[in-house]
Amino acid sequence: MDAVLPEATTEVEIRSLMGDYYDAIRAADCDRIASFYAPDIRAFDAIAELQFEGRDAYKAHWQACMAMCEGMTDMVFEMHDFEISTGSDVAFGHCLVRCGGTDPKGERNTFWMRASFGLERRGGRWLIAHEHNSAPFDPVSTTVMTSLEP
Amino acid sequence: MDAVLPEATTEVEIRSLMGDYYDAIRAADCDRIASFYAPDIRAFDAIAELQFEGRDAYKAHWQACMAMCEGMTDMVFEMHDFEISTGSDVAFGHCLVRCGGTDPKGERNTFWMRASFGLERRGGRWLIAHEHNSAPFDPVSTTVMTSLEP
Repeated sequence: MDAVLPEATTEVEIRSLMGDYYDAIRAADCDRIASFYAPDIRAFDAIAELQFEGRDAYKAHWQACMAMCEGMTDMVFEMHDFEISTGSDVAFGHCLVRCGGTDPKGERNTFWMRASFGLERRGGRWLIAHEHNSAPFDPVSTTVMTSLEP
Repeated sequence: MDAVLPEATTEVEIRSLMGDYYDAIRAADCDRIASFYAPDIRAFDAIAELQFEGRDAYKAHWQACMAMCEGMTDMVFEMHDFEISTGSDVAFGHCLVRCGGTDPKGERNTFWMRASFGLERRGGRWLIAHEHNSAPFDPVSTTVMTSLEP
């Protein structure tokens, strides 16, 4: 059985892990992205589907997202104001995400999203068991709001 | 100090709490809704803003949402496929939400959203410390996707 780490140590460990995870996203390395997930991850992503069930399904979605971004340059995918609540084997976190890039026509397009994470420590290792990415929408126009600033 | 409850008992307790929370939403009772929140809740809602910081700000948003729904009838706000991961004092959960109603012109309009929750047990009582509601959007049209089915 693993020793129960003090809460502060667990938070440092999870912040480091999530930093590495965002590095993998910026590197567009879908194998590395998927290595952070529990096999039974349930993901709610900002686009395309209501949910993705399991690591393979969510990895395939990331691959589709990366294909959509081909031709984009100076991409950003930054975690801001990341807050974490940690237990010994269960934790959750939430942050704002600045993302976007420059499209092939040279148009710069960045906006803010939100991300939530549910983590579980299994076999001594923290895994992302739940992820939720989204942008809010305007209820009148039903269009996503990409000009909001924190 | 509170005794550490077996995981199954904690899950039953949180399921019951979240059932009561959704009852409060269906009753449009914003005082009761806010009673489930930690004072320092951070909420990412589906509409209007990137985030709401603190119970008072999020309660005011619920009041605005309820005002938007005036004149609607046969409202639904149902939790489906609710999954929970529980520790002794930290837990997270996620579900699909069927919501909507009939507008004053008689048009029926229901759709599916997603919800995630981060819970903390403080002073022996579980509180919602984080909530994230959203609907996915179509990346080409940037319009929210309201016709997806689970």
